[in-house]
Amino acid sequence: MEYTAQLQAYREQVERGIDALLPPADTRPTRLHQAMRYSLQAGGKRLRPVLVLAAAEAFGPAPAAALPVAVALECLHTYSLVHDDLPSLDNDDLRRGRPTAHRQFDEATALLAGDALLTYAFQLLPRHYAASPALCTALAATLAEAAGSEHLIGGQMEDLLAEKKADATAAELDFIHLNKTAAMIEAALVAGGQCGGATAAQLTLLRTAGRHLGLAFQIIDDILDATADTATLGKTAGKDARAGKTTYLQLHGREAAGRHATAATDDALAALAGLPGGAPFLQRLTAEMLGRKS
Amino acid sequence: MEYTAQLQAYREQVERGIDALLPPADTRPTRLHQAMRYSLQAGGKRLRPVLVLAAAEAFGPAPAAALPVAVALECLHTYSLVHDDLPSLDNDDLRRGRPTAHRQFDEATALLAGDALLTYAFQLLPRHYAASPALCTALAATLAEAAGSEHLIGGQMEDLLAEKKADATAAELDFIHLNKTAAMIEAALVAGGQCGGATAAQLTLLRTAGRHLGLAFQIIDDILDATADTATLGKTAGKDARAGKTTYLQLHGREAAGRHATAATDDALAALAGLPGGAPFLQRLTAEMLGRKS
Repeated sequence: MEYTAQLQAYREQVERGIDALLPPADTRPTRLHQAMRYSLQAGGKRLRPVLVLAAAEAFGPAPAAALPVAVALECLHTYSLVHDDLPSLDNDDLRRGRPTAHRQFDEATALLAGDALLTYAFQLLPRHYAASPALCTALAATLAEAAGSEHLIGGQMEDLLAEKKADATAAELDFIHLNKTAAMIEAALVAGGQCGGATAAQLTLLRTAGRHLGLAFQIIDDILDATADTATLGKTAGKDARAGKTTYLQLHGREAAGRHATAATDDALAALAGLPGGAPFLQRLTAEMLGRKS
Repeated sequence: MEYTAQLQAYREQVERGIDALLPPADTRPTRLHQAMRYSLQAGGKRLRPVLVLAAAEAFGPAPAAALPVAVALECLHTYSLVHDDLPSLDNDDLRRGRPTAHRQFDEATALLAGDALLTYAFQLLPRHYAASPALCTALAATLAEAAGSEHLIGGQMEDLLAEKKADATAAELDFIHLNKTAAMIEAALVAGGQCGGATAAQLTLLRTAGRHLGLAFQIIDDILDATADTATLGKTAGKDARAGKTTYLQLHGREAAGRHATAATDDALAALAGLPGGAPFLQRLTAEMLGRKS
């Protein structure tokens, strides 16, 4: 299948998976389930679940088995956005072009909906992989470690601390990017590989590709935050500068930031080239991420 | 071993397990790991992890294998307290006789520490049960379902909604108690049984016992909130009345509430009696909960 059609097919599969796998909006407590769905069904690039499906398919023809863990990863990503947007963290009003969860509902509901999305990721795994307990255990490890205090949440905590002092070093910024962003992109590729039956060496390639793709992705995010407008991004633009936050752009300059993103993309492509058949879809997606406008 | 000594031994095992299994306080991000430890090492009755260990031991002599899941359950319980105490929910200053996490650190750190404790529960399971993937998968299902949007978080959400309308019905209050409190006590007994190799029928007995013990526990909590003082409780007393919250006590009266707690305790004891040897430690603990003063 041609790249754009394949990307579209993966995204549609993810949207259908989210709708089918989340608790129904009329299940008690309805307000909580509505807030979970509101946050998860706001669209977005679906980068992480698409990576899960594509990585699984790089090893075989049946990505359907990877759909529940793809949805689980998107639940984790979405919970982290819902909590990041809360008044005590970024206090943001806009996400994916719509009011953030605490603006649409209220702060308590958004807090609990975030907790529920985080927990739901770990409900989905035993519900859908209980027949393959070794796979279920491996997927749980991949997701929980990536989302934990030493990666996703740790990156968020250090981001918060860096904001307060406003003179973060390049090493601190790398820690934040590697953990807040790259860890979950790594986890997406690894989880896909685990579903597809990748060998340990192939999982290492996926992890390497994910780390570099994640770094490139975050550098581009920083560039877009400084150069694109709110309507294009679907989230508040120029936030970093207004928050007095040290960004990759500010630390290295626009040009060097662009070079670093290109270098990280090349490293990701090199790792992907070692997968069966060179994983052409993943290579193309990685290259496209470098040129994205939102 | 005599009951009090056995209870003390279980509690010491839990305290040592928490200290050994949590991320070290000097691991980056240190502030986050310190907040996780501050919240988890505040003491408390350790009811849930003690139930895990005791339920495992009811089926064999080696509760050590149950320690990681006991700690995982206490992580889940503690995260739910940390988030409940936040300004957007109960806005409480005191927990287990010490400042709540957001008072000791700040709101953002408490939010993230809660997220990290929740996630850590699901890191602990694959870290410690990967050699028994079927057990790992079963434990993950038990914990995630109990902590999810239809149980723990769902109960919390309905509690919040009930507070706002201040005229909750008995059925609504039962939903809240069954999900906000009893579900995790059920999960503790079931997880212990799963570690001990309980049969499906025995797991059902444990689940039944947990539900009734959980209900009794919550009714006593409501009674203590209205009748005990803050120093004895280690948390703010009289909160429910001040919040205009419908409580079990208010709905049924002090005397009927006491009778219901006794009846639920009797139901729990009857279920426990069906376990091997009658599970005397669990029976005694269940009976003691009825007469507790804090």
